[in-house]
Order: sequence, then C-alpha cells, then structure tokens
Amino acid sequence: MPASFPLHPFASRDDDDALHEECGVFGVTGMAEAANFVALGLHALQHRGQEAGGIVSHDLAHGFNSARRFGYVRDNFTKQSLMDTLPGSLAIGHVRYSTAGSKGHAQIRDVQPFFGEFSMGGAAIAHNGNIVNAEALRRELIAAGSIFQSSSDSECIIHLMARSLQRRVVERMQDALRRVDGAFSIVAMTRTKLIGVRDPLGVRPLVLGRLGDGWALSSETCALDIIGAEFVREIEPGEMVVIEDGEVLSHRPFAPQKPRFCIFEHVYFSRPDSILGGRSVYETRRQIGVELAREAPVEADLVCPVPDSGTPAAIGYGQESGIPYAMGIIRNQYMGRTFIEPTEQIRNMGVRLKLNVNRALIRGKRIVLVDDSVVRGTTSIKIREMLLDAGAAAVHFRIASPPTAWPCFYGVDTPEREKLLAASMSEDEMCAHLGVDSLRFISLDGLYRAVGEATGRDNASPQYCDACFSGDYPVAPSDRIAQGFRLKEAAE
Amino acid sequence: MPASFPLHPFASRDDDDALHEECGVFGVTGMAEAANFVALGLHALQHRGQEAGGIVSHDLAHGFNSARRFGYVRDNFTKQSLMDTLPGSLAIGHVRYSTAGSKGHAQIRDVQPFFGEFSMGGAAIAHNGNIVNAEALRRELIAAGSIFQSSSDSECIIHLMARSLQRRVVERMQDALRRVDGAFSIVAMTRTKLIGVRDPLGVRPLVLGRLGDGWALSSETCALDIIGAEFVREIEPGEMVVIEDGEVLSHRPFAPQKPRFCIFEHVYFSRPDSILGGRSVYETRRQIGVELAREAPVEADLVCPVPDSGTPAAIGYGQESGIPYAMGIIRNQYMGRTFIEPTEQIRNMGVRLKLNVNRALIRGKRIVLVDDSVVRGTTSIKIREMLLDAGAAAVHFRIASPPTAWPCFYGVDTPEREKLLAASMSEDEMCAHLGVDSLRFISLDGLYRAVGEATGRDNASPQYCDACFSGDYPVAPSDRIAQGFRLKEAAE
Amino acid sequence: MPASFPLHPFASRDDDDALHEECGVFGVTGMAEAANFVALGLHALQHRGQEAGGIVSHDLAHGFNSARRFGYVRDNFTKQSLMDTLPGSLAIGHVRYSTAGSKGHAQIRDVQPFFGEFSMGGAAIAHNGNIVNAEALRRELIAAGSIFQSSSDSECIIHLMARSLQRRVVERMQDALRRVDGAFSIVAMTRTKLIGVRDPLGVRPLVLGRLGDGWALSSETCALDIIGAEFVREIEPGEMVVIEDGEVLSHRPFAPQKPRFCIFEHVYFSRPDSILGGRSVYETRRQIGVELAREAPVEADLVCPVPDSGTPAAIGYGQESGIPYAMGIIRNQYMGRTFIEPTEQIRNMGVRLKLNVNRALIRGKRIVLVDDSVVRGTTSIKIREMLLDAGAAAVHFRIASPPTAWPCFYGVDTPEREKLLAASMSEDEMCAHLGVDSLRFISLDGLYRAVGEATGRDNASPQYCDACFSGDYPVAPSDRIAQGFRLKEAAE
Amino acid sequence: MPASFPLHPFASRDDDDALHEECGVFGVTGMAEAANFVALGLHALQHRGQEAGGIVSHDLAHGFNSARRFGYVRDNFTKQSLMDTLPGSLAIGHVRYSTAGSKGHAQIRDVQPFFGEFSMGGAAIAHNGNIVNAEALRRELIAAGSIFQSSSDSECIIHLMARSLQRRVVERMQDALRRVDGAFSIVAMTRTKLIGVRDPLGVRPLVLGRLGDGWALSSETCALDIIGAEFVREIEPGEMVVIEDGEVLSHRPFAPQKPRFCIFEHVYFSRPDSILGGRSVYETRRQIGVELAREAPVEADLVCPVPDSGTPAAIGYGQESGIPYAMGIIRNQYMGRTFIEPTEQIRNMGVRLKLNVNRALIRGKRIVLVDDSVVRGTTSIKIREMLLDAGAAAVHFRIASPPTAWPCFYGVDTPEREKLLAASMSEDEMCAHLGVDSLRFISLDGLYRAVGEATGRDNASPQYCDACFSGDYPVAPSDRIAQGFRLKEAAE
Repeated sequence: MPASFPLHPFASRDDDDALHEECGVFGVTGMAEAANFVALGLHALQHRGQEAGGIVSHDLAHGFNSARRFGYVRDNFTKQSLMDTLPGSLAIGHVRYSTAGSKGHAQIRDVQPFFGEFSMGGAAIAHNGNIVNAEALRRELIAAGSIFQSSSDSECIIHLMARSLQRRVVERMQDALRRVDGAFSIVAMTRTKLIGVRDPLGVRPLVLGRLGDGWALSSETCALDIIGAEFVREIEPGEMVVIEDGEVLSHRPFAPQKPRFCIFEHVYFSRPDSILGGRSVYETRRQIGVELAREAPVEADLVCPVPDSGTPAAIGYGQESGIPYAMGIIRNQYMGRTFIEPTEQIRNMGVRLKLNVNRALIRGKRIVLVDDSVVRGTTSIKIREMLLDAGAAAVHFRIASPPTAWPCFYGVDTPEREKLLAASMSEDEMCAHLGVDSLRFISLDGLYRAVGEATGRDNASPQYCDACFSGDYPVAPSDRIAQGFRLKEAAE
Repeated sequence: MPASFPLHPFASRDDDDALHEECGVFGVTGMAEAANFVALGLHALQHRGQEAGGIVSHDLAHGFNSARRFGYVRDNFTKQSLMDTLPGSLAIGHVRYSTAGSKGHAQIRDVQPFFGEFSMGGAAIAHNGNIVNAEALRRELIAAGSIFQSSSDSECIIHLMARSLQRRVVERMQDALRRVDGAFSIVAMTRTKLIGVRDPLGVRPLVLGRLGDGWALSSETCALDIIGAEFVREIEPGEMVVIEDGEVLSHRPFAPQKPRFCIFEHVYFSRPDSILGGRSVYETRRQIGVELAREAPVEADLVCPVPDSGTPAAIGYGQESGIPYAMGIIRNQYMGRTFIEPTEQIRNMGVRLKLNVNRALIRGKRIVLVDDSVVRGTTSIKIREMLLDAGAAAVHFRIASPPTAWPCFYGVDTPEREKLLAASMSEDEMCAHLGVDSLRFISLDGLYRAVGEATGRDNASPQYCDACFSGDYPVAPSDRIAQGFRLKEAAE
Repeated sequence: MPASFPLHPFASRDDDDALHEECGVFGVTGMAEAANFVALGLHALQHRGQEAGGIVSHDLAHGFNSARRFGYVRDNFTKQSLMDTLPGSLAIGHVRYSTAGSKGHAQIRDVQPFFGEFSMGGAAIAHNGNIVNAEALRRELIAAGSIFQSSSDSECIIHLMARSLQRRVVERMQDALRRVDGAFSIVAMTRTKLIGVRDPLGVRPLVLGRLGDGWALSSETCALDIIGAEFVREIEPGEMVVIEDGEVLSHRPFAPQKPRFCIFEHVYFSRPDSILGGRSVYETRRQIGVELAREAPVEADLVCPVPDSGTPAAIGYGQESGIPYAMGIIRNQYMGRTFIEPTEQIRNMGVRLKLNVNRALIRGKRIVLVDDSVVRGTTSIKIREMLLDAGAAAVHFRIASPPTAWPCFYGVDTPEREKLLAASMSEDEMCAHLGVDSLRFISLDGLYRAVGEATGRDNASPQYCDACFSGDYPVAPSDRIAQGFRLKEAAE
Repeated sequence: MPASFPLHPFASRDDDDALHEECGVFGVTGMAEAANFVALGLHALQHRGQEAGGIVSHDLAHGFNSARRFGYVRDNFTKQSLMDTLPGSLAIGHVRYSTAGSKGHAQIRDVQPFFGEFSMGGAAIAHNGNIVNAEALRRELIAAGSIFQSSSDSECIIHLMARSLQRRVVERMQDALRRVDGAFSIVAMTRTKLIGVRDPLGVRPLVLGRLGDGWALSSETCALDIIGAEFVREIEPGEMVVIEDGEVLSHRPFAPQKPRFCIFEHVYFSRPDSILGGRSVYETRRQIGVELAREAPVEADLVCPVPDSGTPAAIGYGQESGIPYAMGIIRNQYMGRTFIEPTEQIRNMGVRLKLNVNRALIRGKRIVLVDDSVVRGTTSIKIREMLLDAGAAAVHFRIASPPTAWPCFYGVDTPEREKLLAASMSEDEMCAHLGVDSLRFISLDGLYRAVGEATGRDNASPQYCDACFSGDYPVAPSDRIAQGFRLKEAAE
C-alpha cells in the first residue's frame, strides 16, 4: 500500500493544515443485496474518511462476510466480483481516515468493521468517534488475556463484549459501552439485528432512514438520499435502536445527560446537502457568512471563497455585505487525492497543484477571502501569496469558525496543540503572521447564532461540544491526560 | 484496460449526454527535467482529455524518450520511477479523450504524442483538433506502402512528414500540414526544436508562455499558471512558431484566412481560470448569465447552477436578476471517474451517484436552474425529477448556450446529429420533453455579445466557429460527407 | 486475490490428486537484516506451502514488524520496499498451503506468523503441524471471551498463551502447548528470544543451524544451505530450545514418549537435498526404488519416473533392475502454479499442460513407470493414457509408497478417506481401475527398510507415524472423531 | 514493467552466462477459438522466449484482433477476459526473449506478431530468427518514408511487404523475403491464409501438424503434442506453405541451397520431448553423453548433471561409463524467473537461490559433472565451489558441446565474442580458470556423430550451422561487419 495523503473533498488546504473527520458509518437491513446499498451509502460519506473502507454482511448460507480495502469506495466496493462475496439483506460499513494510535503506516487490520465471535453468536461493529479511555481499557483487557489485532481504540468495544457475562449480544454491547468514555456513534449487526447507538452527549451524528420495508442507519442524511431512503429522524444522544424483523426498538442504556453535539460538524465536516438539527448544512454555513459580514465588515470589490469548503459562507457574506461574490480561486477537480509518490519537483508545487487564481479577474481588486478555519496557517500563507502574485490590491481573510486552539479527542484528527496557530497567537498576531490586510474570525457567539441559538452560547451549560475553540472538554480525555496533556484550567 | 467513462470535471451529466473536448497539448523547452513541467501542465489540462496521456522528451544520452499511459496524469506521470525514464530539457505531452475512428475499446497505440524517425532526424507531435480528410489521406498513404499503427486521424501528419521530399523537419511539417484539412493546434518537437502550429482558422486554442530562459506552449493559460510561467501571447491562427536556443521564430506557412475560433471553448471547454481573448473565461461565463437574465427573466426564489459547469452563469444570472444565488444541487466530489465495472444496482443509480439535491433548501422554492448546454436531455430530465422529488415548487431551466443542433467535426466528441435533442425539437417541444416549467436558451447573438462582440454575430462573416449551433461549417467535413453526412443546405 | 491452485514443485499430478504439506517454518537470530535470511529460508521451503507466506521481525525502534502475503516468497519477500519494513536481527517466517478449517477461500488473516501482545511482552509463532483438539479449545476460549481472528487451528496456541497465568513468555508457551494435542513443530519469537519446539512424538521435522554468531531454526536442512548455515542437529521430539544472546538453552516441557516421525516426509514432502535422520533424502528415495525393484521386478525396456517426485526412486529401480533409466515424460517447467482463471478449453487440457510424453522415445517400448504415491488415481489414469497414445507397448506402475488408505490429521492436507483409492480397493482392483499392465506398491516393511530400519516395521511399537498407510494414529484425532470420523478399529 | 531476467527453464546458470533462443512461433487455422490453441502452443514453446508473448487472430466480425503482453503465456493468455478479445478460427502467436537492437529496456511495441494493413488487405507475421541486413534495410526504408514503430529487425519484413508492387499478400511476402538475409522461420496470416516459411538454409526449425480438419505450424513438435495435433512433417528449408480452406500449398520462392540447420537446437534450445530430424531430442542428448564418455573417460564415483539441461547427457555418460548416475545438485523449482527487484543481500546469493548441492550424497565422492555448454564460465566456477564446499573429493567437468567461441547472428542471444571464455582460452586454460580437476568438451565430430552423422562433420560442406563453435558463418552478418565485427578469416 503506497503512502497516500487523502484530502477532504471540500477542502483544498495542505493535508497537515486540515482537520479530518475520522469516520463515517452506514448500515441497512431488510434490503436484498444489502451490501450494494451500504457501498452507495459509504460513497456518499466518503468525505468522512478517504483512506479505507469495509463492509460486513450476513446471509444464512455463508454467515458473516467481510471485505476491507484501502482506497475509495468507488474503486473497491463497486466491482461485481467483490460485491458477490458480500451477500445477504443485512450489512454495515465504515469509511475511515485513520484510527487513533496507529504507530506507523496504515494496516488493513485497522480497517473496520470489527468482528467478534461470541459464545452465543457474533457481532460486527463500525464506530465513528473516539474512546478517550481506550488505552486504559486495552491494558486491562490484555492483562486478562485478550489479544488485540488492531491499533484501533474501537477494538476495545468488541473485546468488552466478548467478555461480558450477558448472554445476548445486545446486552453484551450495553455492558461494553457503559465501560467506555468518549464519543461514539456506532452501527453494529448480529446475524439478525441492525443496531445503532450514540453516546450520551451525542457528539457524533447518526440518523435513521426508511426505504420500503427496510431500514438504514447513517452518519448523515446525504447517504440516505443516495439510496432513495426517507429521512425518519436522528438517533438521540444516549439512545440505542435495535432493528429486527422490520421493527425498531429503542433502548436507553445510559444515564441521561445534556447533549453536546459537535458544532464543527456544522462548520466543516458534514456535507452541505445533509440535514443537521432540521436545517440544511449549506444554509447554516451561508448563515455563518451572514453573521461574519455583520461582525467583520470591510470595504472590498469581490468576496471569494477558498474552494470548496468556504463557498457557502462566502455566498452568505456577499449577500449580507452587498459585495459581489466571485470565483476568484479555481480548484483543480482532479485532486481528490494528492499525487502519489510524486517527484521532488512536483511535491514542491504544493497548493498550486490544487488551486489556481483566476488572474484576469483578481488583478487590481480588493478581495474578501472566506475560509472555513485556520489550523496551522501554512495554506493560508500560500493562498495570500498566490493572490498578491496575481495582482490583488488587498486581501482580507474572513474565517467561518472561531480560532481553533485546542485538539479534538472525540474522533477528529487535529494537530498537536502546539501546532495550532491559534494556540499561541492572538488574532492580530495571526494577521501579521499570515501577512494579510485584515483577518477576522467569527465569534463563538456568532457561530452559535448561525446554528440557530438566537442568544448565543450558554456558557454555564453550553449547547454544543466546542472544545476545539473553547478548550472546554465535556468528557475528560483520560488517556491523554495520563500522557501529559494539560486541560485549560491546568494549563492556565 | 477496463472500460472507463471519464467525466468532464466541471460537468455532472451522463457521459453520453455531454460534449467532450478531445485533447490538450503542452510542451516546454529550456527547462531542466522538462517532463516534470509537462506533467504539471497536462494535469492542469486534464479536463480536456481524461482517458489517457503521453509525454515525449529528448536528451542527448538516450535520444527520444516516450511514455504513454491510460488514466489520469496524477496517477502516472508523477512517479519518480516513470519520470526518470523521461530525461531532457525539451518535452511535449498530450491528454486525450478519444481519437476519431477508434473502432472498439481504447488501445495504447492510439495515445499521443506520435513519433516518427525520418531520414534526417525524428519528430514527435501532439495534436488537438480533428482532420476532416484523414480517411482519404490514410487510404492514399497505405496504397503507397505506409503502415499505420493507430486508428487516429493525427497519425496521417507524421506519415505525410515521413514522405515529404523536404530535408528539414520543419519544412516536412509545413508540407504535411498543407495537405491536411480541419482543425489543429499542434505542439511538436525535434531533437532541438519546440514547435507550435495553429490551423488557418485557429479553431482550437494555443498559447505561448515564458519561464526564466525557457518557453512553454499550452492549450490554455491555466497550465502556464501551474508551472509559474508568464502568459506571453496566443499563437495566431495560421502561425507556426519554432523555438530553438531560446529564440522564438514565427512562420506563416498557410494562405491567410479570417479566423474562426471555437465559441464553445468560452461556454464550456476551457477552464474558468484560463484567459481567452484577453478575458477571464469565468468572467465571460458570468456575463453569459447576465445576458441570459436579460433575455429570459423569470420570477423565482433561488438561482441554482447545475454544478460545476453552470456555476459562473448562475452567479451572473443571480446578480443581474436579483434572485439569490444558492447551491441547490451538491456534487459528490469523489466522482472524477464514474464507477468502474459497477454492479447492475449501482449502475442504475446514474446521476444520483454524482449529484444530490439540497433537500432542506429546495423544498417549496421556485428554482431557476442554470446549465451550460442541453445535448441529449437525459440528464436534464433526471435533475428535474430530483428537484421535484425534493419538493421544488417550480423548475425553470436557463441554458448558457444556444441549442446544440449539429455535430462538431473539429475535435469535439458530439453524438450523432439524430441524438441531439435540438436537431429535431423546437425550444417549446424541448420544454415539454424535459417537463420543466420553462426552458430558455441564450440566443446566438446574446452569446456573441457575452464573448465581447457588442453587435452580436456577423452573419455575413461570422467571427467564431459556431457550427454546433448554426450548422455553418467553416471547413467542409469531407470524410463525413463521403460517408453520407448532409450539410445544412443539403439537409434543407 | 484470485483463486489459485499451487502445485508441489516436485509433483505433477492434479491438485486434488496430491497430498500437500501444510507448512514450513524458519527463524533466525543474531543476524543483521534477519528478515532477508528468513526470506531465503522460506524460498528454500516453498515446496512445503505455496499459497502464502509471512515474516515477523523485531527491532528496538519499531517493536514487532509483520508482513503477510499471498503468493510465492520470491514474488513478495524480495522487494527492497517490503523488506525495509522488516528490520531487526531476529525474525521468523512461515509458508503455508492452507489451514485446517478455512471454510471458503483464502484470507490473509489466516496467514502466519500469528502475533499476540501479552501483559509482560509479546510473541509471534509459526506452526507446522496440526492440532487435533483445536475445535474444542476454540469453543472453550470463545466462551471465556477470546476473539479469534483466523480460522486456523494454530491461533489457539496464542490465545492459550495470552490467558496463561505465568508471567514469562516461555512459560506461557509451555503452559499453552501442554493443552494442545497433535503435531507441532513451532518456531516462535519474543522481543529477544528465538524459540523452537517439537511435539513429544516429533511428527514434523525441525532442525538447528549456525551461521557465524547467529542461529537458525528450520523445517529442513536445505533452508540452512541456502543461507550458508551449518547444520548443527535436529531439535529432538518433545524438546524446546530457547535461543537468546547467542546461547541455546534446551527445555523438556513434556512427558517423554517414543518418537514417531512422519515417514511420508522421507517419501515425498521433504526436499531431496535435505538431510533426515542423518541421510540424504534423495538417497533414501533412491533406496526405496532399489527395494521396490527387489519386491516387484518386471521385464521392461525403460524405467521412467513421473517427474519430478518419482525421479530418485526410478533411478534406484533402474540401477537395481538393470533396466535403463530414461526421461520418458517431460515436465513443462513453467507450471510452478497452474493457470490462473483459465478458459474452459485450457482447463480441460489438465495434465497435458504440465506433462508431455517423449513420444519418439516411448514408441514400442515396455515402460516401468515409477511414481511416489497413488491418492485418487485420476492423474495416474491420464498418464497411462498419454503413454499408450504415444505407442508404449506396456505400462507397469511401481509406487514408491504403500497404498494411501487413511487421511492425515497431523499437518498434511489429504482428501477425505472415501476419496482415497486405496481405502476401497485392493492392489489388483486398483490395477484394473488404472488400466495398467501391472501395479505394485512398496510394502510397509520395504519402506521401513529403505529408511534404514533393517528389520522393517516394529508393529508392536512402530518407529514412525505411518497412519496414512496403516490407519494407526499415534494421537487420537479428537475433533474429527467428534465430527464422526471412525478409527480403524471402530471402522472394522 | 519491472526489469526481469527470465531463465531458460532447462538451465540454471546466471542469465548472462547463458545462451538464449530468441523466439518461438505457432499458428493454427480451421479450429474454433484458435487463439486458445495458440496460447497452449506458446505455453509449450515458452522455453524459446520468456520475456513476452503476443497473439493475433482474425474473425469476420472484428477483423484482426491482437494482444501482446510481457510475462509468461500462462499468466496472460489464459484469462477468459483476454481470450474473449481474440475470436476467430485463424490465429498466430509469438514468444520472445528479446529482439535485436533494443537499445534499452523492453517495450511492448517490440513484441510480435507485427501487423500491417496493405492496400489489398493486411497481414500479421511472427518471426523466429534474425535478419543480418536489417539495419541497412531499415535505413533504406526510412529514407523512403516508412515509419518504424519497433526496434525489431523483424519489422523490416512488414514494411517491405507494404511497399511491394505485388497485389496479393503472399507475393508481397515473397518479394519481401527475397530482400532479407539471415535466418527466419516465419508464421504469418492474412484474413484467410495461414503461412509458414523457412529461409533457404533452414537454420531455425518449423513443423507442420494436423488436428482434425485444422492445421498447425510450430517451432517444435512438443507444441503439437500439447494441443493433441499429429506431427505431419517439417517445413523444408526454403519452403513456403500457404494453408487456406484446409489445403496446404507448397511454394519454393528462393534459389535452392544446401540446408544448414542449427546444431545447437539439438544440444540445448529445443525441448527434450521434441522430435528433430526424426529423433527424440532427449535421445540425441543422451547420445552426446555416450560419445563424451567414449572421448573423455575418467575415474569417478558419481555422474551428476547440472540440472536440468545437462541431465540427458549425464544419463548417457553414466550408462556408457558404468559410473552411477545421481542427482548431486538439486534445482529450486520456484525459480522460473529470478527474483524481481531483489534486495542487495538476496541478489548476492546468485546461483544458490537456484541450485543446492545434495551435501550428504556428495561428501567424499569424485564427481563427473555434465553441463551443456560453457559460455562465460561464471556459473561453472560457482558450481565447482559449491561442490567442494560440500566435500566433493574431485570435480571433473564434461561439456556436452564444443567450446562456444563465436557469437550467433541467426536468432540466438550470445554475449559479445570477447566475453566468451572459449574465444580466448584453450581447453587447458579454461580448466585452470574454472579450477576443476579436469575439463573436457565433446569434439565437433563427436557432436556430429551424436546427431546422426556417422562420419562426423563434412568440413568441405558442413551439414549444420555450427558457427558458434567453428566461426564458419553460412550467411555473412553484413550489419555486424559494417559495425566492425571481424570474421574468422579476417580475425586470423
């Protein structure tokens, strides 16, 4: 497997200058050739994990069938020869960016779904999120004789299930998940059941859909659309649904808590055509642009997005400010993945392989450039250089999220805190560092307003998980604290 | 080589419902590791031909070096191991969609550049365009003992050069091109010279760029940008430039004619960040939208593009009409190529693999949908269905080009005339056929105005080749006429 | 991974008409780039398992490194890029035919070495042989919460080790192996130790070699030769050697038993250039031919082997009988693997793809044809047909082993008993079935004499495991008995 | 295409220490799915060319169909998907080692059959042999405007045919071949005809076979055997057969000459199960061993072959001398190709990857080692070292051919003359150089006797081409002489 550096499809920044969702999950039951539906669903969720994907199905003749592959869904799970090995009307799947703890290069054994055979049956699980006490659990399980096959935090769940004293798989899973801290949206299956669970805070999304007599579970609604399924509702935080024989049973295995959904799903991770909290993600992002225009107006000739993730906010900024929206930067559409094994000369081209300035349009113009976030800032500098090279008269950065100053421990791959520009610089310092004429981030309250909280953030009891902006972690990241990570109060 | 169905990156329609540019050409001289620059240039021109690509370089130690591959530039011509086989400071390259006359599936021998060894030296050529008397020339050459290795019309040129009685390669090429009818923008090379030629009408684009002491020739300016070269000027219709030892010499081997550049390059083929006729292609397309809003206004809630090719015109339509621009249809960014060897179930998903409606945004809204063209109409029907499924209150199609009623014989892959919807239906009939609330195409004069001809089309002596709209073919397609094709006057 | 049907390199019969050794194991310590030595050793042992191979190495910087691949050693474990991922001076490896219990097509997770991380360290093991109570152990381990990743019987060992209450890996392994019934020659490693073990009967071979300051363990001596190591001695039945810091420590973890080495290793499995019991395997096989000539003489013109496994016995038969030895059948040397995914027409060619009769030599001659064994007899019939087609005057089969009437449960892949020709036919019936002029097998006593037991088989306490000939199983195959297999006494 | 170094299957020496046949040809007509028969025939001829293979077929629906691939026949021309692209009842094929003149690494365009479309039809040809005036012809053809696509000497033939003034393809071919000097056995086809030709000297073999109503042409009879065809006769030197509608017509297009078949085909190139001159090649080689034992007796304990090419002669030597024949050296059967892209350490293993000494057998014995030839001597030295390392008491080399002192220009790949050991050393000097106890080559007369010429070589008018031994070239190698090669008389 050659090293590869997959990109978020709606992003254009350097890979280490981006945040990556780690996973997407999808499952269906009650549909002939279920694995084909799962392949389609995973294709629609590919932006949540480009590195690898896997599908497990079950049929009476063969039992559990499994295929896991590196690369895009469209390149693997579309071949008749492979799909023929995944028969059955019940199947789940997973796409991933990378798992926590992978010490070196990617290994197929880290690709989900994971499968375990138990004394009363077997189960496969696909996990989106991150378990913050996985290291401690792993040590405990190894001491008891469990053998881990992957470096994934998610594998703990299947071992905890194997060792549960419960007889039934659903109860084994409840047992296991009560031991687990952190964020999880899980799609699992037994021989006859499709199961969906969200952690008590509901950090990661999970939705329920219906197609004919069958049911689907998905990270996002856009994957229901691709198979033509109707969006029924979100799985609620702390809820477990067990679907069998066409019936959906709802369980509440956890002590109730106030939910704190990841606010960055609105800003960046979810697809713009998905529905979150009853509203189009696109529309929310456009509204962020509107808020940003109100908070941080500037005189300029054109509003341009950094394509493609900045586009909705740029449209909103343009509409609110009255400055014409324009495509000042064009993305090369052949860069779904960056160049594999490139020559030195090509590697040095960096962002120019992906983006080009619309020179004839930009020359002499004052540009408001709207981007979704600033992580390390390396891409921002290159884009500013490209615009000035092309003759822009001024470059004003407007960022559709607050400064990203803290790492995520709930299923998003973020650089270490010390590499986050906002961890050590003020807005003014960042403006000077990036060399732009002005730089403004949307405020945390502005972001909350844009996602529908009219009065902004409730600081006493925040409505969302916004740890990456605020350092306010709703679940203590215990493994990382054991490794020396200092929480905000400790750091201050 | 598995069958593949590459898509125009800025398009989203079904493959047989689209027009395809057949080629892009690029060449550099006076740059160390020239093949790397050519790889970058071809990557930027990939939208002009996704099926295959080739590079020829020359160095003293090895002579001419050649590599031709199916697939994207980024997947082939980026590997150190391959690029090491292409040393030298002079190189040319080609990306192609498909050649005229390929009787079955794609063969590597049809991939350009073509190379010929002559008695006084050798030459490689890369050709964008189409030779309309290629069949007649091929018969004549075979009778004289030439052996063709490909099914490409372009191979005629190299055989005509081989048989020329001139001694010098440049003069052999002039000899050969004087025998050839049709459209050609050629980048060629000898051991020491980089050569660029455009046919007397200048149907296909070709531009000259400069980087340090080196020179580049390219189909479009966006490929100069990627290597950091400065755009010097367009090669003029009927001009041949010969670049050697850092000097550019200009020849005029053909009888002068009034140029007729392909107007569809403005509408669709060229990248929006390229410069054509001194203006940003993006800006021209936005202006088409402005003209369209003036010619064909309608009451509506949102203006949405069919992504990505309809986007600039939709922005212009929104700005001129005052109706808010919005991303009502989202393109799956993992569809650079369609699914290879898909299962039946997946193949039937068709356009839903590529596009999804932003349901929460569209519901209850009257939509102006802006697309670049209507070819067979099959995709348009599916998009209309998707929008109505999602609850749109009305769907008004606005098309950024006049009705496409005639095939192109100058280097664009178009369906047979009988498959073009506009060949047999009026605008009203098409509206009924597509099932939309209204359908309007920009007028031919409106299009001419948008590309900068203030008074519209000069019908006595048209400024552009617009045969696909008008049936007015500037060069008689002699091979096709011999096969039974009837010109407009004959058809009427 | 396309289905493939690898052949024993010294055989030529149809794949389902052959016996297959299931594994070869190899390990080295104290040698820089140990994995390269293991690759060489596995290449020399490829005849013991052609389907897949794996290597695990350990170095301080990376810990345990692992690579497992389908296909030949020479095609995988020779690439610099792969071998670079296996650094360290301690490594073990495994080649396999197929594991017991694989319910469908081959999966990479079944490829050894297996690795387990324990609370006080980790270990990797490579196992040649078969565990006859693996199913029972697996059920017990699953009930206790162990999760199996493969369908291999060998995985039990690593789980038993993980659950051992001992702290040190060597003692955990002793614990585990005392629970295991059947045949095993194991090469294992911890971070610092290379370990070799043979079951108390010593059914499968394992030898110790020395190269400079380093040590090697191997299934056969031929693999010591390829790395230039000196053959020191055989690991004794029931012995465990632990090699660390250049020292070899010998343990005796099992109750002592009278050894019963597999006599078929002499007849067929081991390479002719290996040394077993102090004697060249080639020489033993030649001696089998000598015994066979004495037991079953016949008048004939030529003695021909079925290449290549019958060659040494045919040479011996010729020398003892005085009938000239000749290559009457020629093997196509390009059949290391049979045709992959062949067309129907080609598949029907069967044995003719692999063997051809030397027609000009054979015509009119009476042939003694020497083969190593008769399993199902299908190949024998085809060879007889080929010889008669070519004009042979008579065909006398002489078989270098007694009739194979019972399946092996100790690490050899044999057809079910009902498919073994000798399970239901007498020698005369087989002769008629095969349609040959005469058919004689060597007697069991004759075989014992040829391997050096001057007085033949000690029926009271046989010197070898000869269950495949005698039905006398030295360890009761408990899993198979539970599935309904009837032992000889029960069957009679 | 990674570089590969295929081995003669019956050889074991280092690749640059061996002679390589350059090609095998095969064709059939009048058989449904002809390409499948050609694939089988080429598989049987694989020893004549391991690098690449190609097949051309013709059917009415598609015309000429072609597929050319690097690698073994069994890995390419056995896949249903590929064979389905080669329909028709008339097909020819070619396997090759490498063509003359390839300046660098292998290119698919050099793989035969070559195809040309002429004004009155097309033809494909497959050529075994070498054209000694190809360079001169190529220059002449290029000057006239022909464009060469390959670096192969064989391509001249198709260009000469294209330019012939004859109308019918058969006559064009006769025209072309009269211009060509050197060795050629050609299998060609038009839309309806299968054609076979041998040069007037008949240097390379070509035989005719019959299967039902169909006909086959093949380099050797072993390839007739594999498809079950009956061997009818050899095509005669200087004969052209044209097979159409089940009829075989014989032409004599060339001035008659005394034939001089390549004597080395008997010694080494042809498969031992083929029939040459009415006799089994195996039997001829055994007879060479008999002659060698008479000419060069020695006291010893064992006669051993260098496997596999020395085996028949070693059997003969043993039978004549009374010294027991034994397999003292065992060949690793997994070395059909040498390691691809090996690590440095593995590459250094050299011959030990391929051969191993049967140590327990060899120790203390005096060995007669029979090999087919000595080219550069590098392998011989390594084998001698291996035997002495293993404890051999003495090593006597006996070589089944006379000293190879001159390069072949008729289709065999030989090192330059200065690299041939026998070009600069006497037998005694070679014995000292190789460090063996004695070294003897068969005499040229002895070789002639062994191939059936009772009175040895007719020096006035030799019965065979033996230029590689004698320097007596039956056709002057004009291209090579122009490049400075000095014939024997000139050299002396």
